[in-house]
This record gives sequence, C-alpha cells and structure tokens, in this order.
Amino acid sequence: MSKLWQKDNVSVNEKIEKFTVGRDPEFDVLLAEFDVLGSLAHTQMLESIGLLEKDELAEIQQELKAIYQSIQAGDFTIEEGIEDVHSQVELMLTRKLGEAGKKIHSGRSRNDQVLVDLKLFTRARLQEVAESSNRLFELLLALSEKFKDVLLPGYTHLQIAMPSSFGLWFGAYAESLVDDMEMLQTAYRLANKNPLGSGAGYGSSFPLNRTMTTALLGFDNLHYNVVYAQMSRGKTELFATTAIAQFASTLSRLAMDICLYNSQNFGFIKLPDEMTTGSSIMPHKKNPDVAELLRGKTNRLKGLPNEIMLVMGNLPSGYHREMQILKEILMPAFDEILNCLDMTYFMLSNIQVKEGILDDAKYDLLFSVERVNELVLQGVPFREAYKIIGNEINSNTYTPNRDLKHSHEGSIGNLCNEQISAMMQEVTAKFGFDKVQNAIEDLLK
Amino acid sequence: MSKLWQKDNVSVNEKIEKFTVGRDPEFDVLLAEFDVLGSLAHTQMLESIGLLEKDELAEIQQELKAIYQSIQAGDFTIEEGIEDVHSQVELMLTRKLGEAGKKIHSGRSRNDQVLVDLKLFTRARLQEVAESSNRLFELLLALSEKFKDVLLPGYTHLQIAMPSSFGLWFGAYAESLVDDMEMLQTAYRLANKNPLGSGAGYGSSFPLNRTMTTALLGFDNLHYNVVYAQMSRGKTELFATTAIAQFASTLSRLAMDICLYNSQNFGFIKLPDEMTTGSSIMPHKKNPDVAELLRGKTNRLKGLPNEIMLVMGNLPSGYHREMQILKEILMPAFDEILNCLDMTYFMLSNIQVKEGILDDAKYDLLFSVERVNELVLQGVPFREAYKIIGNEINSNTYTPNRDLKHSHEGSIGNLCNEQISAMMQEVTAKFGFDKVQNAIEDLLK
Amino acid sequence: MSKLWQKDNVSVNEKIEKFTVGRDPEFDVLLAEFDVLGSLAHTQMLESIGLLEKDELAEIQQELKAIYQSIQAGDFTIEEGIEDVHSQVELMLTRKLGEAGKKIHSGRSRNDQVLVDLKLFTRARLQEVAESSNRLFELLLALSEKFKDVLLPGYTHLQIAMPSSFGLWFGAYAESLVDDMEMLQTAYRLANKNPLGSGAGYGSSFPLNRTMTTALLGFDNLHYNVVYAQMSRGKTELFATTAIAQFASTLSRLAMDICLYNSQNFGFIKLPDEMTTGSSIMPHKKNPDVAELLRGKTNRLKGLPNEIMLVMGNLPSGYHREMQILKEILMPAFDEILNCLDMTYFMLSNIQVKEGILDDAKYDLLFSVERVNELVLQGVPFREAYKIIGNEINSNTYTPNRDLKHSHEGSIGNLCNEQISAMMQEVTAKFGFDKVQNAIEDLLK
Amino acid sequence: MSKLWQKDNVSVNEKIEKFTVGRDPEFDVLLAEFDVLGSLAHTQMLESIGLLEKDELAEIQQELKAIYQSIQAGDFTIEEGIEDVHSQVELMLTRKLGEAGKKIHSGRSRNDQVLVDLKLFTRARLQEVAESSNRLFELLLALSEKFKDVLLPGYTHLQIAMPSSFGLWFGAYAESLVDDMEMLQTAYRLANKNPLGSGAGYGSSFPLNRTMTTALLGFDNLHYNVVYAQMSRGKTELFATTAIAQFASTLSRLAMDICLYNSQNFGFIKLPDEMTTGSSIMPHKKNPDVAELLRGKTNRLKGLPNEIMLVMGNLPSGYHREMQILKEILMPAFDEILNCLDMTYFMLSNIQVKEGILDDAKYDLLFSVERVNELVLQGVPFREAYKIIGNEINSNTYTPNRDLKHSHEGSIGNLCNEQISAMMQEVTAKFGFDKVQNAIEDLLK
Repeated sequence: MSKLWQKDNVSVNEKIEKFTVGRDPEFDVLLAEFDVLGSLAHTQMLESIGLLEKDELAEIQQELKAIYQSIQAGDFTIEEGIEDVHSQVELMLTRKLGEAGKKIHSGRSRNDQVLVDLKLFTRARLQEVAESSNRLFELLLALSEKFKDVLLPGYTHLQIAMPSSFGLWFGAYAESLVDDMEMLQTAYRLANKNPLGSGAGYGSSFPLNRTMTTALLGFDNLHYNVVYAQMSRGKTELFATTAIAQFASTLSRLAMDICLYNSQNFGFIKLPDEMTTGSSIMPHKKNPDVAELLRGKTNRLKGLPNEIMLVMGNLPSGYHREMQILKEILMPAFDEILNCLDMTYFMLSNIQVKEGILDDAKYDLLFSVERVNELVLQGVPFREAYKIIGNEINSNTYTPNRDLKHSHEGSIGNLCNEQISAMMQEVTAKFGFDKVQNAIEDLLK
Repeated sequence: MSKLWQKDNVSVNEKIEKFTVGRDPEFDVLLAEFDVLGSLAHTQMLESIGLLEKDELAEIQQELKAIYQSIQAGDFTIEEGIEDVHSQVELMLTRKLGEAGKKIHSGRSRNDQVLVDLKLFTRARLQEVAESSNRLFELLLALSEKFKDVLLPGYTHLQIAMPSSFGLWFGAYAESLVDDMEMLQTAYRLANKNPLGSGAGYGSSFPLNRTMTTALLGFDNLHYNVVYAQMSRGKTELFATTAIAQFASTLSRLAMDICLYNSQNFGFIKLPDEMTTGSSIMPHKKNPDVAELLRGKTNRLKGLPNEIMLVMGNLPSGYHREMQILKEILMPAFDEILNCLDMTYFMLSNIQVKEGILDDAKYDLLFSVERVNELVLQGVPFREAYKIIGNEINSNTYTPNRDLKHSHEGSIGNLCNEQISAMMQEVTAKFGFDKVQNAIEDLLK
Repeated sequence: MSKLWQKDNVSVNEKIEKFTVGRDPEFDVLLAEFDVLGSLAHTQMLESIGLLEKDELAEIQQELKAIYQSIQAGDFTIEEGIEDVHSQVELMLTRKLGEAGKKIHSGRSRNDQVLVDLKLFTRARLQEVAESSNRLFELLLALSEKFKDVLLPGYTHLQIAMPSSFGLWFGAYAESLVDDMEMLQTAYRLANKNPLGSGAGYGSSFPLNRTMTTALLGFDNLHYNVVYAQMSRGKTELFATTAIAQFASTLSRLAMDICLYNSQNFGFIKLPDEMTTGSSIMPHKKNPDVAELLRGKTNRLKGLPNEIMLVMGNLPSGYHREMQILKEILMPAFDEILNCLDMTYFMLSNIQVKEGILDDAKYDLLFSVERVNELVLQGVPFREAYKIIGNEINSNTYTPNRDLKHSHEGSIGNLCNEQISAMMQEVTAKFGFDKVQNAIEDLLK
Repeated sequence: MSKLWQKDNVSVNEKIEKFTVGRDPEFDVLLAEFDVLGSLAHTQMLESIGLLEKDELAEIQQELKAIYQSIQAGDFTIEEGIEDVHSQVELMLTRKLGEAGKKIHSGRSRNDQVLVDLKLFTRARLQEVAESSNRLFELLLALSEKFKDVLLPGYTHLQIAMPSSFGLWFGAYAESLVDDMEMLQTAYRLANKNPLGSGAGYGSSFPLNRTMTTALLGFDNLHYNVVYAQMSRGKTELFATTAIAQFASTLSRLAMDICLYNSQNFGFIKLPDEMTTGSSIMPHKKNPDVAELLRGKTNRLKGLPNEIMLVMGNLPSGYHREMQILKEILMPAFDEILNCLDMTYFMLSNIQVKEGILDDAKYDLLFSVERVNELVLQGVPFREAYKIIGNEINSNTYTPNRDLKHSHEGSIGNLCNEQISAMMQEVTAKFGFDKVQNAIEDLLK
C-alpha cells in the first residue's frame, strides 16, 4: 500500500496541507488587528522585565502601530506560504527591524498568542452584538408604544384565549432581549480575562508580568492558573455561542409568529414588499422569505453550542489541535447573528399591523374571562362564576364585554416599557465598554 | 376504525390519562413547598387590593403555613384522582376553610401559578448547586496547595510538553468552577424574576399589585410584560440546564483526566478502593467505575439544553402543553449534577498522587523549553536557541535542567490560589442568597 | 479533608453504591428474559465443545426454561443485594443445581453477556415498533381513502398555495412511515448480529463455537471481530434511537399540523373530546393537549441520538463503564415511541374533518395555477399564462375554476395508496421476524 | 423609524438580497449537472404527453446535452443577476431556442425541480462515500492481515485487560465500516426516489407520467404522494447526514485511539512525519495534528443531523423557505467526510506499528485470564480458578503464560477477515450503482 502513497506523494502532501490548514487563512485575517494589540502589550511588558531594550521597544511599537493601521485600512493579507497571522505579523516586523522583530516571541507560545487574539476578537464582536441588540430593542419598544392600543387575539395551545395587543407582543420581544443580554454579559466576562503568559498551558520560566498585560489590554481580570487559561479554549467559544444561541432563540420565535400572523388564516400583519417574494408557478404568492430565512438561520445558530460540545467532549486537559477548528464555528456565527439582528430591524421598521382584528365574531370568546372576573368583582366566587359563563357559552347566550380594564404592571393597559428600558440600561452598563475602549486607545497612542 | 376505539374505550381513556399526566405527580410533589410560598404571597396581595377580607386572609395564611410544615415534614402527598399539586393544596384549604379556600385562585391562572412555582424551585436548587460547587472548589484549592510541589508531565496534543504540577492541575479545575459559577449566576438571575400576575400570558383585569408579590417572594425584579413572563417558560429551564451543563463540562473533563492518569500507562494517581471495582473474568482488575460514570453522567447532562431547544423550537408565542414536560428534563438534572458534584468531592477527598513521576527518563524532554529559555536569558535570540536545543535533542546530547524557576502569576511556583479564591467569593456574593432567605422567612413568620 | 470522608464513611459508601448502580435494577429486569435466552444458547454451545457434560446441560436447560416461565409470568425480581440480572439468574441456578449452575459463566464475560442481552432486547422492541407503525400506517391509508374527496388548502411558506385534500394529507404521513421503516430495518439489522463469544472485547482462549450460538439465537450474522463486537455497544443504541427519532419526526410534524388545523384560525379538523382539556380560567377552552404532548414527547425523542453521541464521544476503543447508562437512554425510549404511536392511532381513529373548507372565498386564489395551466393547454407559453393570471389577480378580475383534474401518480385524483401499501409490505418483509421467532421457539422447546 | 429605512434604501435592499441569496450561488453550481439530467428526463416525458413537439424535444435535448458537457468541462457559471441554477439553464436554452426553451418549465415547479436536483446530487455523492469507504476498508483489512501477529494490550476501563493484536484492532475498524455502509445504503434508498412531478407539493393538473421520469433517471421508485414528496425535503438531508455521521463516528474513534497510541505513554504506533508537526516553543515535539484534526472534523460532522432537526423542528407540512439553507449543511458535509476518509487512508498507509510491546513487565497481568482458563480446562470451576489466580496476583506469585490459544471466530488467532469482506460485498451490492449509471448514460446518449 505504501506504493500508492509514494507515487502520489506530491498530491498527498498538498491534501495534508489543505486538511490541516483548512479555512484558517480566511479566519486568521480577522484576528490580525487583535494579534497586533496583543503584541503591543506583550512587548511593553517584555521591556519592563528586561527582555527588550528600550529602543528596541520603541521601534517595535512604532512598526506594530503601522501594521495596525494597514489592517484597519484593509491592506493586510497573509502572504502565500506564510502559515498564519502570527507568522505574517512577525515577518513584517523582521523585514523592517531585523533580529529585534523576532524577539516579540520571547515568553510567549503560539498557544497563548492565539488565545489572547481570540479573547480580544470575541470581546469586540460580543460588543457589536450588544449594540445591535440595543438598536433592535429600542425599535421594539417604540413599536410597542406606537401600537399599544391595537388589540390582537392572545393564544394558548394555539387556541384563542384572551385579548392581547401589539403593544404586549412587541414589548415581550423587547423584554426577551434584556435577559438575552444577561447571557451575553456572562460570555463577555469570560472573553474579558487575560490568558497571555500561560504559554502552551504550563507557563514560562521568564519572570513575566501578567498583571501588566491584563491592564494594558483592558481585561477585567486574568485567567490566573495557566492550565486553566488553556482550558478556557473551547469554553470561551462555548459561552459566546451560547449567548448567540439565546438571541437566536428570541429571533426565531419572533420569526415564527411573523410567518403565522402573515398567513391568510391569521392576517394580523403585512410585511414590506421588499421582504416577500413570488412563486414560479403561483401568480398570487407573496411569500415571507426573509422571515422564514430568519427563522431557519437562527434555528441553525441554536445548534452551535452542541457542536462545540461534540468537538471538545472527552478531550483530556491540555491543548489539542482540533481546538483550532472552533474558529470555523465561532467566527461565522457572529456575522450570522449580526445579520439576523439587522434583518429583523429592517423587517420590523416597516411592518404594518392590522387594526380591528377582534371585531371579527370568531374572537368573541376571547373576552370570556373578563365576564368571569366581572362576576367575581360582584362577589361571586371564582369557581362559580367560571361555571356560569361556561353555561352561557354552551347555550349560546354569551356576549362579550369588550371593555378591557387591564391595569396592573405589564398588562395591556400598563406596559411598563420604561421599567423594561431601565433594566436594559442596567445590564448594558455592566459590560464596561468604555474601560476597554480607553485601554485600546492608550495602547495605540 | 372507530369500533376499535369504542370497544377499547376504558383502556384508551386510561392510556390518554397516563399519556397526559406522565410523570407529573412525581415532580409536582417537589413543587409543593414553592406552591405554598406563592399562595402565601398571592393572598396577601389579594387582601391588599380588596379581593380577600382581612379575616379570610388570616385563616388562609395560617392554614397554608400548616401545609408548608407538613410538606417540610415529608407528610404531603397528592391524593389519588387529584390532578396536580395546585389542586391538592386548594383542596386541603377548602376542606378546612370552605369557600374562602377557593378564593386563592382569584387573579391567578394555572399558568402563572406553575411559572412562579418553577421559578422558586429553580432558584432554590440553583442555590444548592452553588453551595455544592463552593465545597468542591475549596477542596480543589486545598489539594492544589497540598500538592503544589509534586510535578506532573504537562501534555499538548497528548504528547509530553512541559512540566506541570498537581498544584496547577487541581487549581485549574478550581478556577474553572469560578467561571461556571458566573453562568450559574446568570441562570439564577433569570429564575429570580417574578411571573406572578401574568395569568395565562395575557394578564388580568383585576388590579393586581405585582410589585408587592415580587417583594414578598424575595424576587430581584419582575418579568414585566405578561406575554414575556409566559415566554420565560422554557427559557428559565434553558438557562438553568445551560449552567448545569457548564459544571458538567468541567467535571467530565476532570473525570477523563482521572481515568487516564489512573491507567497503568500513566500511573499518576490512585483512587480509593471504594471507588474501584473488579471484573467478572479478570482477577487483576481495579476499574475506576465511579470516575467513568461521573464522565458519562456529566456528558449526558451536557445534552439537556439541546433537548429543551428541540422541544421549544418553532413554537409560536403563547403557552403550549408540552412545556409541561420540561419539568421531566429540568428536575432530575438538579439531582444528577448535585450527585456528581458530591461524588467528585468524595473521590478527590482520598485521591493519592504519585511522587517523583518526572524522574523517569521518558519525561526528560519536558524540560527542553527551560533549556531554550536559559539560552535566551544569556542573550541568544529565541529562534536560534530553539534550533540549538533541537539539534541537541536530535544528536542525543540534550540533558534536562530540572531546576524550575516558574514564578509569574498562575505558574507552578506562584499558583495565585488566593486570587482565585477571591474571584469565587466575588461571584458568590452577587447571588444575594440572604435577601431571598429573609423574604422567605418573613413570608412564613 | 480525609476526616470528613472517614466520619461519613457509611453514608459515603451508600452514595457510591447509589451512584454506580443508578437505575440499573429497574432496567435489568427488562433484560431478564433475554438473559435466559442467551444462557440457553450459550450452554448448548458449551456442551458441544466439551465444557459441560450432557446431563449438566439437561439440568441447566430445564432450570433456565423454568426461570423463563417465571419471568413471563411476571414473577421474577432481582433480590436485595444482588448486583444485576445476570447474578440473579446465576444465583437461582446454583440454588437448584449447585456447582453446575456456576459453569454457565465459562467462556463468557459480563461484557458479552450484557451485549447479547441488549441485542436481543433491542431486536424484540424494534419489532414492536414495526408492528405498531404498521397498525398506524393502515389507519392512515384508510383515512386517506375515506376522505380522498375532502379538499384542504395546500400551503407553501404558510401561505395558501394550491388545492390539497385530506386524502393527500393522511396519505403523506402513511408514506412517511414507509421510509421510517427503512431506517428501522437498518437498526434491526445491527441489533440482529451476535456479539456472544467476544468476552470483554478480546475473545477467549476456549474453543467457542460462535456460529452455533448465532444460529441458536436466530441472529442474522455475527459481529466477527471481537474488538468490534464490543464497539457495537453504543452503536446499536445509536442506530435504534436514530430509527426511533425518525418515527418521532414524522409524528411531531403530524402533531404540529393537527394543532394548527385544530386552531380556530384554520378550523379544518375536530379532535375527539377525550383528547382535549379545558382551562382553569377560560371557560370556553378545548385545548388539544394530547396532540401537543405528542409533539413535545416526539421532539424530545429526536434528541436521543445526540445524547448518545455526547456520552460516547472521544472514548477510545474498549469497554468503559458509562456505556451502562446508555440503557437509561435506550430503554425508556421504546416505551415512549410506542406510547406515541398508540396515542396517534387513538387520536386519528376518531378525528373529524371539516367538509367544504374551500368554499370560503379566502381560498379562491388556491386555484390560480389551475387557471394558468388551462391557458397553457390552450397553447399559451407558461411564462405568459403566468403573467396573464397574475394581472387578473391584481385587477380583481380573477375567478377560480374549481374543477380539479389532477390525475397523475400521487396527486389528488390518483393517490396510489395501493402502491404505497406495497412498498410498506416490501420493507416489512425484509425484517424476517418469522426466522427469529422460530429460533426462539426452538430454544425454549 | 421608517426614515432610517428610506434613507438607507439601497443598502437595505442589498442586505436583503444578500440575506436571502446567502451561499446559494456557490452551492447551486454543484447542482448544475443534476439539473440538466432532470430536465432531460422531464422534457422527454413532456413530449410523451403532448406538451412538447417532437422537434422541440430534439432541439432541447441537444442543447441540454451541450450544457451538460460544458458543466463537465468546468465551464458553467451562474451569471451575475441570475437567481439560481435553474434560471441559468433556462436562460441558456432560451438564448439558443427562443420560446421552446421556456416550455421546459411546464408541469414543473421550482420546488420539485430543486427536489429532484438534490436527490440526484445526494445519490451521486453517497456513491462517492461508498467507494471511498470501500477503499479504506480494503486497506484496514490488509493491515489487519499484515500485522495479525503483533500483539497489543487490550483495555477495558482504560485499564490493561487482556491481550489484543493489531490484527484485531485494524480489523475492528474495517468491520465497523460494514455497518456504517448499511446506514449509507438506507440514506441512498431515500435519495433514490423520484419527487419529480410533485410540483410545489400538491401535484399538477397536467397529465404527467411520473413513472416514466422515474425510469429515465434510474430511480428505484417514486415518492408517490405529492405532499410526502415535498416532506422528503429535510428528510433526505437528514438521512444522508446521519449516514455521514456514522462514518464520522468510526473515524473519530479511530483517531482517538491513534492519538493515544501515539502518545509517549503508550508508544504503540508511529505516524509518518508528513502527518506530524512541531511546536513554536518546544523543540522536541512531533504532534499528530492530522489525527487530531480528523478527530475534530469527524466529531463536528456528528452534529449535523441535530442541526437539521433544529431547523426543521415543528415546521408544519408544506414547503418553507429555510429548507433552502439545508444545502449549506449537506453539501460541505460530503466534502468533509470524503476528505476525512481520504486522510485516514493516507495516514494508515504509512503507519508503523511497534513490535514486542507486551514484553514489558507492565503488561504481565494481561494474561491472567489465560491462566484462569487453563485451570478451568483442568476441571477447576471458573469461580474458583478466578480466586486462585487472584490470590497469586495479590501475593506476587503470578507468572503470565504468554502462549495464546485464541482460535474461535473473530479472535486473535482467527480473524475471519474473509467473512467480514464478504459482508461488505453483500451490502455494497445492494446499492445497485450499475443500474443508475446505465440510466444516466442512456439519458445522455
């Protein structure tokens, strides 16, 4: 059998190359700016412990900042034959600075370098998700206020149940984002811990100052234990995709409601024309493709934490090569959830709601509880009132009382959108985006 | 075909009964104490808005407290033919108090009653997980300190890499629990919001005071929007199992390490005899069954969030009956993770670690980086030093320098266990267990 | 820390016991009859290779058959303190037969004994699923025939699209079961291979005759390679739950349709009263709880293959103790899918379908394609005909032509239920249930 | 809020376009050849029922074959602004043939056109998986034969247990592929059923001859019921990824074994240098990256069936737009599994196995069962022999008897590789690849 191997040597080596490199180059470019930030901090620290001369540091910092600007300008690429983003940056440095450029690898392993890049990347993208969610949140609350008087049938068991409103419906999804944001904040906290200095997971014999790089990079704290710092690989991705999956859950449920409410059998809403498409054989169709794709894409995102668990399951402690492919799971997930948040925003921006839905006699029974409660307030015990109205319904003598008096916190007449807004602000404040931004600005000054 | 149905009428109805009731009675008993707490708060509120008389309230409160005590004493059962825990409590009340007992259902639906029971149950059990994790955390840190000088090979790619230590290894799992606790805290925050007053998901026309029940039950806040309060069903369970899955991930990885380290091919640790079993055909076997079962049970727990997502996926908003079966997923999961935390604690309490592992020549190469770094500190650029030692290894002239000088934060010589402990205390403090306990005590006074 | 351990010794040992035993006794009882069958075959083989005397064999066979009958009569229990079903059977034998009873363990390990029990158990239960599915299949086809002329709106994108019929709808789910049965057959093939004689996964130095036990137990073939025979643990369970999940997918989709069609906004069907329940606060409700629970339970079953993969993932070859907990996943899954198949059968047996649904003007557009096709048959190119009717619709001049002429294979007017039935018979025939039954009867003769 | 929408109109429309189109163009190109095959069959059938003239058919067939050849030559692209592969093919036809080109859409919907394309694509790629698996199977069997006398420790519970061999180890993975092939065959059967003629899921009023297209395209059978034909969307993908996941399970377990056996603590095998890589800081490392990536990639593939279930879950019957994104799950999965099968082949082609492993005294206890069995064959009851050897081990008087006599089917001395090979041939024969190939050749003649 080895013959085949030998004859085929070149193409086999190419296949191995392709198999091991995978989609790394594509994703590594996205890490470039964070790799530079990590090196800016690492070299400052190296100088402070005597592993770099002051003037070497000055040169390196200047050059790194130049590379950073070329990345921001979109000019950065990983050259043919260069293994990864770290090698590319190092190569660019050594071209300019010679030996000094190579010194940035002192006291650092490829492992903790990737780790810190991924932490910074994840932290930045989680912030984008937070901002995008906040924008959608504001829209949902505005829609809730705008349509607070437009009634909607409320369903349980997909059966008509009690009166609801567009105010409640939009507001519910707004409030859902508040709790999703809590999950995001937890993912952010994990992404905001410094693994730099953990080497290949067993630290270094250099007298590194990890507290210093923690401060320079704006991290909240460090992953102290170096073995654990390495274990945070996979876990950081798991927390991030768990948060993404949470937003996805909210959006997919919203999308299902929209698809249903847009069906002729409900007819509660109308989507903007740009969001619907026709059929190749049915000339009358206006299909809610965007809402359906939103539902499908978000449902797919919900599977990512499980995917990560399948990859990481039963791996003993210590680095394993396949952790690299978690990038292929994590990185596109950010694009996808951000697109989905965006698209939901666009879709809702021009949604039309139907007025007078409950005027249809089909919905009369929605008001049966109101009639029960009337009796209760007149002193009839609840169980008895329930029976009386039940008998009215069965004997067709029931008439709805459409005069709704819901006034308690969170009900049709008292949406409490201000309180919900306050909760969102409270969660958002916990992220501490300013502190991070200040640190990055200082690094790049 | 209807014939079969008719002939078989009785048994079919029994089958339907069994199909719909499922394991509810078994799990409902676990909700009993929380159902009573919810009713204690709800009735105080009803009185405050004039839906109960002062003396009715007094009677009801007294009776509910008596029921609470019988539950605590283990005397509570759901009687044959009674549908659920809520009906059972109501029945016990009306037996004693007549009509007044029935009034506790005013302004409340079965839906928000179950919701509040589940929130209180989940909150209480998450606290148990927090406490049990803290106990294990303390043990892991103590082991880390105790064995901080016992060296261990560090692996990457399952290949020997650099020196590690039992101090690092135990400490890593301790620090892992800190981040798991952050996830638990997020689950706790969601469980600690009040859904009471949301009715069947569309509120009530009674002038309920939801802020009052929020305070009485020690909740942090309310789910304001009543539609969202209902949507928190499934989501509360998802957050809780996500947190459980996180602890499970830490424990399963630890268990895999233990199974490996306990293998004759590693031989790094010895498990207590009570934790191993023999074989039916091989007289020499001492199998680490407990560690393996720990690994399997925790790996299984990791699937629960996905299971919940499969059940909840693409359900439109509003209550659906199958949300009830989420109890069957959530409730046993708490027992399982608590058992697993316990068992890990027992297993580690008497674990024996082997000294002098690295004296074996097989591990000499672990020290190659130390030799590289020596050269670097003597001024040789890293890339060159790396080549020199590589050549020594290839020409068999390499000798390890076993004099480890790791001193930076989180390394072998500087574990930072105090800082890790401080992080754990900080997370734990955020739960606010005291506030909850005080509220419950006040309710029962 | 060891103090706690010692002080607490007794309860810790109890906890370990509970942790390792788990729910085994509960599930082991279900294996009893298959354990006896395995021993009947194994001992015949032992005698044939000289490891049992003829008279010993006769005694053992007689006693095993007696135990088998007590199991069938429901009289078998695993006694307090007895580890598992295998020990219990062996104990019962030795009580009667003394030393001879112990000999049945020659040439067999606990591992291959459990394996063969699980194979026989799985094979038997998969047959039950096949039979139950066939019963439901017949009902679906009968309903398809009965209601073949009752029209239904066909939807794409949840938008009304083209005319469909109850004939098509019921028939579609029938045909779905045919392909599910193919998956079941694959699971059955894997369950129908003999692992006996593989010992602990490395075979035996006794001159076992595995071909003989294969024939005696009615297996189709053997797992030849003993290492692979052990690897079939987990895989057999995975195939079986994959097949279960496939039926679950069909049922959950049917249940979703039913919940939707039963909603007031569709109103296409009416469920029997026994299958619906009321609300605690809304006197008008008739909720389709059975259909919802069917949806939830089947959706939950769909998660089982993933659960098994999480447990088995990254375990190296060879037996690991946690494979034992796969029983807790597999065994209840059979009960659940059989209940779900049963309940679907009952629900559909008395379902009422609404006639004249398409008379509602809301559904007029369903016939737009018919109008397009009319024009095409008159020679108008399709794309042009499509535009003409589209313009009619936009200008409100469109009138539906309700005269349906669908006649091709599988369309409204030509359901091809006979061909579908023939496909089902073909798949079912491949199982070879007779051969298995004959072998078992011979064993017990 | 609509302002933002308006101001941003252009970019929003672009975003919608990007959101709905997704990665379709990339994947649609892969469907091109199958789309042409479908049209070749469809148009023959149209002519047979009078919807195309004989000469129109001749022209169309000629042109379609030309397009087919351009696709095979790699010259086919979807032009800018053209929606999908179907439109592109139609456009190319009409450019050449005018009106006649448009007629190919008669009696067909985009839905059943995509469906048939996907069936043909899946069928073809499943065949590739079968062929690639067979190649690996042959290699594994050859390795099993080659190294049948090289012993290996057998493990249970990761503890040394009994003697095994490389013959058993390689052979076990070969036999595993046999059962995986059964699953593949089931997926193939589902892919090999004709959905053409089902239109948008509700058939057509044209007198289509679906039996004719079934034969022309080499399908085994049709999905008769048109509603079910549409339901096969998602299910076909689920079956295919389930089969892929099954091969992935086998490969991931093999990869885990390889990583372990390649570790210094086992040292059983040596991987070819091309398959290992070094470390950036440890000059001694040879990491088995290819095996690790194989493990990770295959573990990831195991998540795909669940991903599909999350997307499809609780969608009512009828087409939904998100079914389109299943292409993004299915199509890359084929590339990935084929790469993984390839890479496993290359890795094993040059693997080196270590001889004399069991000479190490550490493995003496592997032979304890042999000693027990010796006593049994001398007449000592098994349970007693077990105790005797156990005592020898505890008192250090045990000496291994390394004279292995395993001779039964599937054991070290009797691998039964021929029988395993015969099983593989039997499964492979069931696919019927010839019949399909003949049909395709006839279509293109």
